[in-house]
Amino acid sequence: MFSIKKIAVACFAAIASIACTSTNNANDYGYTIKDGVIVYNTPARPADQQSMLGFKADPIENVRIGFVGLGDRGSGAVSRYTHIEGITVVALCDLLPENVERSQKTLEEGGLPRAIGEYSGEEGYKQLCERDDIDLVYLAVPWQLHTTIAVYAMEHGKHVAIEVPAATSVAECWALVNTSERTRKHCMMLENCCYDFFELTCLNMAQQGLFGEIYHVEGSYQHCLEPYWDRYQGDWRMEFNRAHSGDVYPTHGLGPVAQVLNIHRGDKMDMLVSMDTDAFMGQKVSDRRYGQGAYDYKNGDNTSTLIKTHNGKTILIEHGVVTPRPYSRMYQLTGTTGFANKYPVEGIAVSDGKEAADIVSIDDLGAEKFLSDDEMNKLMSDYQHPITKEGSLVETAKKVGGHGGMDFIMDYRLIYCLHNGLPLDQDVYDAAEWSCLTEISGVSIDNGSKPVIMPDFTRGEWNKLDGLRLAL
Amino acid sequence: MFSIKKIAVACFAAIASIACTSTNNANDYGYTIKDGVIVYNTPARPADQQSMLGFKADPIENVRIGFVGLGDRGSGAVSRYTHIEGITVVALCDLLPENVERSQKTLEEGGLPRAIGEYSGEEGYKQLCERDDIDLVYLAVPWQLHTTIAVYAMEHGKHVAIEVPAATSVAECWALVNTSERTRKHCMMLENCCYDFFELTCLNMAQQGLFGEIYHVEGSYQHCLEPYWDRYQGDWRMEFNRAHSGDVYPTHGLGPVAQVLNIHRGDKMDMLVSMDTDAFMGQKVSDRRYGQGAYDYKNGDNTSTLIKTHNGKTILIEHGVVTPRPYSRMYQLTGTTGFANKYPVEGIAVSDGKEAADIVSIDDLGAEKFLSDDEMNKLMSDYQHPITKEGSLVETAKKVGGHGGMDFIMDYRLIYCLHNGLPLDQDVYDAAEWSCLTEISGVSIDNGSKPVIMPDFTRGEWNKLDGLRLAL
Repeated sequence: MFSIKKIAVACFAAIASIACTSTNNANDYGYTIKDGVIVYNTPARPADQQSMLGFKADPIENVRIGFVGLGDRGSGAVSRYTHIEGITVVALCDLLPENVERSQKTLEEGGLPRAIGEYSGEEGYKQLCERDDIDLVYLAVPWQLHTTIAVYAMEHGKHVAIEVPAATSVAECWALVNTSERTRKHCMMLENCCYDFFELTCLNMAQQGLFGEIYHVEGSYQHCLEPYWDRYQGDWRMEFNRAHSGDVYPTHGLGPVAQVLNIHRGDKMDMLVSMDTDAFMGQKVSDRRYGQGAYDYKNGDNTSTLIKTHNGKTILIEHGVVTPRPYSRMYQLTGTTGFANKYPVEGIAVSDGKEAADIVSIDDLGAEKFLSDDEMNKLMSDYQHPITKEGSLVETAKKVGGHGGMDFIMDYRLIYCLHNGLPLDQDVYDAAEWSCLTEISGVSIDNGSKPVIMPDFTRGEWNKLDGLRLAL
Repeated sequence: MFSIKKIAVACFAAIASIACTSTNNANDYGYTIKDGVIVYNTPARPADQQSMLGFKADPIENVRIGFVGLGDRGSGAVSRYTHIEGITVVALCDLLPENVERSQKTLEEGGLPRAIGEYSGEEGYKQLCERDDIDLVYLAVPWQLHTTIAVYAMEHGKHVAIEVPAATSVAECWALVNTSERTRKHCMMLENCCYDFFELTCLNMAQQGLFGEIYHVEGSYQHCLEPYWDRYQGDWRMEFNRAHSGDVYPTHGLGPVAQVLNIHRGDKMDMLVSMDTDAFMGQKVSDRRYGQGAYDYKNGDNTSTLIKTHNGKTILIEHGVVTPRPYSRMYQLTGTTGFANKYPVEGIAVSDGKEAADIVSIDDLGAEKFLSDDEMNKLMSDYQHPITKEGSLVETAKKVGGHGGMDFIMDYRLIYCLHNGLPLDQDVYDAAEWSCLTEISGVSIDNGSKPVIMPDFTRGEWNKLDGLRLAL
């Protein structure tokens, strides 16, 4: 009666062969279906690995960086790093030599020396990772290559920072977790949306209890990519979207709200169900691009995913990239004493700590109304997140830019924590948990929206840390 | 790993005994679970019934009305009907005689004669329905009594109009459908939100093709009821919420978006999954009201339901009534050439008919931006729905009021169609389809968010009408 798409093959890029083992079998990284419920395995931790929860590396006075991937996103990162102190850009790598040279010029224009290492071609990343004068490999390559290169970098002694999503399958997520745990190297996904001003401030409000018990959150990525498809070298993004059902780009929506819910720091995502629309527009876009009927476009024009946490909270995540509509990176928090919403407009409502059960008159319903602009501005100022109060960080971030400054704050925080030997804001479990939706939402959809019990990448240690704390 | 609540017992009120037969058996109105999918039966149509699709009753020059239920909602309806021509209020009925007298005074103050029939007590509705001088019974009683009284009224030759939701279980939905089909009497649910100005205008825009192919829609009912619980006679609403998981009040969100998708007029709702939060606040409210631990409060603080249609569209419906937050009756349409959104702000974006596949430059992305106020006002005026253009209807509606006028437009339309012998705007299948979520969403939740194949109340005739047309 309803449309059941063919079971998705998790493997996409031959080059990323390390991680493509998720199948409908009871293998380590796969799932089984029991009584209509899809249950992912959580394999035992190998003896030579330890948890990375709260992991601190030794302080690094000057962080030596190698950039791999210098397209739109990577070249922007190089540009931002010319504004960060205590770093050296040691090496640059891209498939195309001209992109390497472009970023060399960016360094020069930013007053920094040219990188001493230059690499190109499909295997260039290996030479970069094999250098012994690099602390951090910063990855902005096609999604399909993230895990392969990150694993290679960690195995060669480097911390890694990876563009979103860090992985494209559950097996890749486990590869990141296992390699980070074994090599004792940081593996941070670069989820920049966690650093947007509204989100950071609301995170602080949430942690200060302003919203009471936050029980439902929403996040989304709604962005018409039509004018951007050609920018992805070799058409990698369209190819991925074309070949996969599910929310293939979940982390911008999920990351900020997962932080608010303290996922794997007292709560965890237990189960999800996902549902998509048919590819009304996606198929047309594909037909125009590749010829009528050349491909069966798999990704739904809209994908909705509901996640239930162990502590009884729910998360709604949505994805849509093929029709013209106003951009929305929904960020919504509903709590017992307050509410916050971003997109289409930012708004906050609070009841001064009064829960519904304390309310006896309709006049007492403070949180029924959004705060006025003045009240909102005062609250946003009062609750500015401590990590943004360092010197002139906010001003610099706005000047440097990168999605309004959030990219710069992200980069700054990564280097700050490495300088000071602190846990990173996002650990390898965040990377795995947020990225795994890419596969799992598709598996739910391909099985007629059956519920999926998610893997626990912390292997039972999700309740060990008492809430998210961004280290200072 | 995730919380599975006990299977809900569909029965609530002993008085509504007619309809409480949905259980986990393969009976006519129930469901079976096959391979992890919950499948509702669609029983064959009995030989003495005919479809009510497009049903027209003989024109009624003067509509003689009996009102049953004269609390907050019913007394407001009586007041509005003093502004409608071509009707006679023949009889009034309420559990409490003082409510009957209050509405008699309302009639007098509105310049109408007092109703000649007055009924009270638990069985008063029977005497009212048994009169032979009534055309329409207008029901605003507790949810638990809707179907019982509506069935009794139809069986005694009356058309019925029922407050939302029309039924509280799938079996009750079938009782309405079967009785309406057998008696050839209209059974309209009074889903007033279909008549709000933004929704009606967007419906017209959708039908004129402004949004292209509409593939995803959202609706919700988010309203802190804390100050209202005491208004429900005998605590019926709190009792229902306390005892049921699922979206117990789905029709305000679902009705307007189901109309846009032409549900049972070319498309149908095939399958849903539902997920709720724990009752963080609901349990506290119950404890304060009834004593600590007196009841295990079942209804989640937030309930989210995803519905897939036969034609590959998706619907998101949300419900939350126990925490203070800004009211939201989300109404969102996403199409291939446009987007409309209501709550927290009204906004429309259109691409002048350009689909993504026609867009070649970023400057061409018209629908990435919401229309300006001026553009929006012009569009809203250009697309004013024809049914609101009758005489001074809009002005009268705003003067009479009732949720800003939409209640009056609804009443006006009901009487207009009865006067002219036209199909009603909402038929008995709408009532059943929109109301059945009350049970079905709970069944999905109580089974760990398993998918549910929904019953087809039209019994295979969902594709017979070519789109929704509000008769003129």
